[in-house]
Amino acid sequence: METDSDLKRTQYCGDLRLEHEGKDVVLKGWVDRRRDLGKLIFIDLRDRTGKCQVVFNPEKDAELHKKAEKLRGEFVIAVVGKIVKRVQANATISTGEIEVVVSDLRILNEAETPPIAINEDGGESEEIRLKYRFLDLRRPAMQKNIMFRAAVMQETRQLLSKMGFIEIETPILMKSTPEGARDFLVPSRVNKGKFYALPQSPQTYKQLLMVSGFDKYFQIAKCFRDEDLRADRQPEFTQIDIEMSFPTPQVIYDTFGKFVADLFKHTIGVDVGKIPSMSYYDAMNIYGSDKPDTRFGMEMHTVSLLFAKTEFKVFRSVVESGGAIKAINAPACGDLTRKVVDQLTEVVVASGAKGLVWGKVNDQGLEGPSAKFFAPETISALVQNLNAKPGDMVFMVAADTTVANKALGALRLEIAKRKEMAKKDQFSLLWVTEFPLFEYSETDKRWSPMHHPFTAPLEEDISLLYSPEYYLARARAYDLVLNGNEIGGGSIRIHSAGLQSKVFELLGISEAEAQRKFGFLLNAFKYGAPPHGGLAFGLDRLVMIMLGLDSIRDVIPFPKTTTAQSLMDDCPSTVDAGQLKELGIRLE
Amino acid sequence: METDSDLKRTQYCGDLRLEHEGKDVVLKGWVDRRRDLGKLIFIDLRDRTGKCQVVFNPEKDAELHKKAEKLRGEFVIAVVGKIVKRVQANATISTGEIEVVVSDLRILNEAETPPIAINEDGGESEEIRLKYRFLDLRRPAMQKNIMFRAAVMQETRQLLSKMGFIEIETPILMKSTPEGARDFLVPSRVNKGKFYALPQSPQTYKQLLMVSGFDKYFQIAKCFRDEDLRADRQPEFTQIDIEMSFPTPQVIYDTFGKFVADLFKHTIGVDVGKIPSMSYYDAMNIYGSDKPDTRFGMEMHTVSLLFAKTEFKVFRSVVESGGAIKAINAPACGDLTRKVVDQLTEVVVASGAKGLVWGKVNDQGLEGPSAKFFAPETISALVQNLNAKPGDMVFMVAADTTVANKALGALRLEIAKRKEMAKKDQFSLLWVTEFPLFEYSETDKRWSPMHHPFTAPLEEDISLLYSPEYYLARARAYDLVLNGNEIGGGSIRIHSAGLQSKVFELLGISEAEAQRKFGFLLNAFKYGAPPHGGLAFGLDRLVMIMLGLDSIRDVIPFPKTTTAQSLMDDCPSTVDAGQLKELGIRLE
Repeated sequence: METDSDLKRTQYCGDLRLEHEGKDVVLKGWVDRRRDLGKLIFIDLRDRTGKCQVVFNPEKDAELHKKAEKLRGEFVIAVVGKIVKRVQANATISTGEIEVVVSDLRILNEAETPPIAINEDGGESEEIRLKYRFLDLRRPAMQKNIMFRAAVMQETRQLLSKMGFIEIETPILMKSTPEGARDFLVPSRVNKGKFYALPQSPQTYKQLLMVSGFDKYFQIAKCFRDEDLRADRQPEFTQIDIEMSFPTPQVIYDTFGKFVADLFKHTIGVDVGKIPSMSYYDAMNIYGSDKPDTRFGMEMHTVSLLFAKTEFKVFRSVVESGGAIKAINAPACGDLTRKVVDQLTEVVVASGAKGLVWGKVNDQGLEGPSAKFFAPETISALVQNLNAKPGDMVFMVAADTTVANKALGALRLEIAKRKEMAKKDQFSLLWVTEFPLFEYSETDKRWSPMHHPFTAPLEEDISLLYSPEYYLARARAYDLVLNGNEIGGGSIRIHSAGLQSKVFELLGISEAEAQRKFGFLLNAFKYGAPPHGGLAFGLDRLVMIMLGLDSIRDVIPFPKTTTAQSLMDDCPSTVDAGQLKELGIRLE
Repeated sequence: METDSDLKRTQYCGDLRLEHEGKDVVLKGWVDRRRDLGKLIFIDLRDRTGKCQVVFNPEKDAELHKKAEKLRGEFVIAVVGKIVKRVQANATISTGEIEVVVSDLRILNEAETPPIAINEDGGESEEIRLKYRFLDLRRPAMQKNIMFRAAVMQETRQLLSKMGFIEIETPILMKSTPEGARDFLVPSRVNKGKFYALPQSPQTYKQLLMVSGFDKYFQIAKCFRDEDLRADRQPEFTQIDIEMSFPTPQVIYDTFGKFVADLFKHTIGVDVGKIPSMSYYDAMNIYGSDKPDTRFGMEMHTVSLLFAKTEFKVFRSVVESGGAIKAINAPACGDLTRKVVDQLTEVVVASGAKGLVWGKVNDQGLEGPSAKFFAPETISALVQNLNAKPGDMVFMVAADTTVANKALGALRLEIAKRKEMAKKDQFSLLWVTEFPLFEYSETDKRWSPMHHPFTAPLEEDISLLYSPEYYLARARAYDLVLNGNEIGGGSIRIHSAGLQSKVFELLGISEAEAQRKFGFLLNAFKYGAPPHGGLAFGLDRLVMIMLGLDSIRDVIPFPKTTTAQSLMDDCPSTVDAGQLKELGIRLE
């Protein structure tokens, strides 16, 4: 191999433009493609910024041309040359107006034929892509993803720093807590028989940092959960973790609404505007989801009153038994075929509804199998209520409210998907607020915390905690939703010992148990804990959505499979018996 | 407890100045100190920015004054008030010209008497400080340290990003490698009997990222080593990790010399100038150390030639047997007592020297027990050589060169310490370059890599590798030294398969063994690996030295003890038998 020590790169390939015509340049990169045209050899030279064409002309330098004949795809080379205007510009690439006439070539490294093509999508399986991740990452699309992720991280830190948040590192080797998801454990060699755990999140540390008076904290933190993986989960993932002292929910929405808006503006140039907020109750009633996709309408309407006296028995009996009739209008969906409508019916039935009532909107009213059961004035009121237009299609479900919400929520997503109503370059953000403090656990047959037991109730609901309807209390908890995905969430925490005791009591956690589980945090709270709260954003998913991608593995440099393996380096792997002996553990 | 939801903080305590006189403010913070003077109650209110005085006057508001009587140290409060000029300014604090006359007080949380005082150094043991870390971190000095660390991290990322380095996250759950220090292991539940390891550094990943064409990478990375800890080591530590493609050592020195200079300039306002460099060989010969403290002189001089014909037998026999006589001049050390000189002699003897020859410099020459053995012209030449002045003291050691270097190197540090020659606010940086490629392992009785087996040799020493003196080859490896501490180090890596095979052969590593140990990296190198190299800076130590501190635990938010424990949360800890069963492991 040759060396390039005496050659200083002058430019990146992708930066060359016609304005550089006549310049002498030194470029270094990979042979993306070689074409021999007549006597000329053309090389597309590639680096992280893009490609440019370099030319070897045997009439100018026969020896150099001979050397260029050795070049194969993915060879690493350095070229010295002059930029000239191309006779015929190539409008498909940004450097297409120029080419580099080479005067010196160094072959810095050769390459075997790579198992995946770098300059095209060869349709390789994800398994091959992950095994040869170092080559997969060489692909321009993947380079763009990873560089964009870096840009989001830089922008995040700069924005939060400017807002007075202090980046503080918290430990990766921490105490195992029996709450929440499963911990990854790390056996201690020095303290045999004992274990560290990897953090599921820096939750306790960030609350302690508020007790320490840091006032505003953030960290782009690695978190770990040993769960059985779904397609969009990773055993280690990255979150933008934030906590602040003396906040109110409104301060949180304003502060981090602005943060997210600035982040979008500065990285992808998108103005998301002021982020609206909606209570959990409203989100469930209007969208049938606590993470509604608000890129498209199809809001649910409760139309029970319209059908209070209907002759349509199915509706009437539901209304009389305390259920609800809920409707959505699907715009420009009058063309859905009977077959599709049957499939949509399956969606609502899978959510627990008994059936789906539908009607195409026309100039006269509604057209469909159930329309004949409804009085003309009912139809007219319904169409008006839903603001439906001819060519739309109206769907209705009659059921218990929870079931109706769930069924129409699922229906709305299904219709949006089939009709491609959700655009990937549209970004619709929403704060969902006032989550319930408790949720009923069917497994444990009791009320458990919807977030975690330190979540503060709404101030106006504190008195509820002392009543038999304590489980109706709402929390000062919030999620930030983007295009139907929860990209962030958090809460104001309880900082008063009295209120905390009350919540523990309601959750059936004894003082002794609280001490054992959360002792060092409760202990810290004795010495002057400020009111505090915060949130965390899932970086992987946020970046994925910003890029309009479908897999978080495409925005993580070295991801693991759904069986938590790294195919590139065959990890996890067996280890020496000696290593285990030192740790004082044995395999079962 | 009261709430502060309706009160928006207008300012931080420490930011208040006379220019704010007359302003209405809302402050939130901790009661640092309460003083009752006559009828008035004075509170020093503290937040992360500092303190300011707030006053309760019973003649203005008797009820409020009564409430203020309840306040104790570390209570969390919100106050509403007006800024007035103090009658008598307190010049010792930055807010000393003003005070806040309170019109509303909210007690947001009470506090028990903390086990360590926040507003003074109570001389608590480190054990107590670590147990109550959340309170220790509330101390202004610790807050300053952690906030400075955050500033260094922000500046680092901004500088490196501007220089075109891309921040890329590498996995924490990786493959265990049998090389180097001991890995922390993480048992896999999904893949029973297999283990992940926590990274000792992102070394292999950053080299793969170069193969992937990212060109310039950085990361502020958590690293883990399960070693028996010394006072200044932590099981998890943070490094600024960097790699670039197509570098030369000079590019590395220029690029990261500028980075470090900018970092110092922007964070502590210190101009470190252009960082000089010195070969490993010179550093050993002049300072007796590969990490010389260059804040003070006392360079070593080889003066063997002066004593080639001396009558002083000790010197003569050393010179004749091929050893060296080396000398340093200790400026203004003529006042060292005989007792101190005896202690200094112990230092050189501990390094393997037989003894220490010394003489005080006076107008006539040298004064000391050995001076009488030396001819006047020898003394005169010695004094001139060393540029010694009356009042200085000259020290000499005669021994094998390696021993003499080590002995005088240790002596020089000891003298500097005793005479306080090294100032903590002086920052002296040095690149130490051209480290040996190999070092002899007494344990294994063979030559092993001084850094790691991927370190490239100097281009001019490559031919040496094919000779019997291969072990004399120098590496393209470098350290950055600050005030006698290695704060960074790295190398240019081998990227050619042929050269790599040769180095493996010299190290006695068979092809099969290389494949087993480094297979996936060697495999990646087949597909077009660019020349590359990099380095890593130890963030903890860098921040510690920049702050003039002596313990890295004072710049790490939640450090572990030398037995790798966290005293605050009692970690590592025992875990449930069920957790171990799920992981398929048992305790021995």
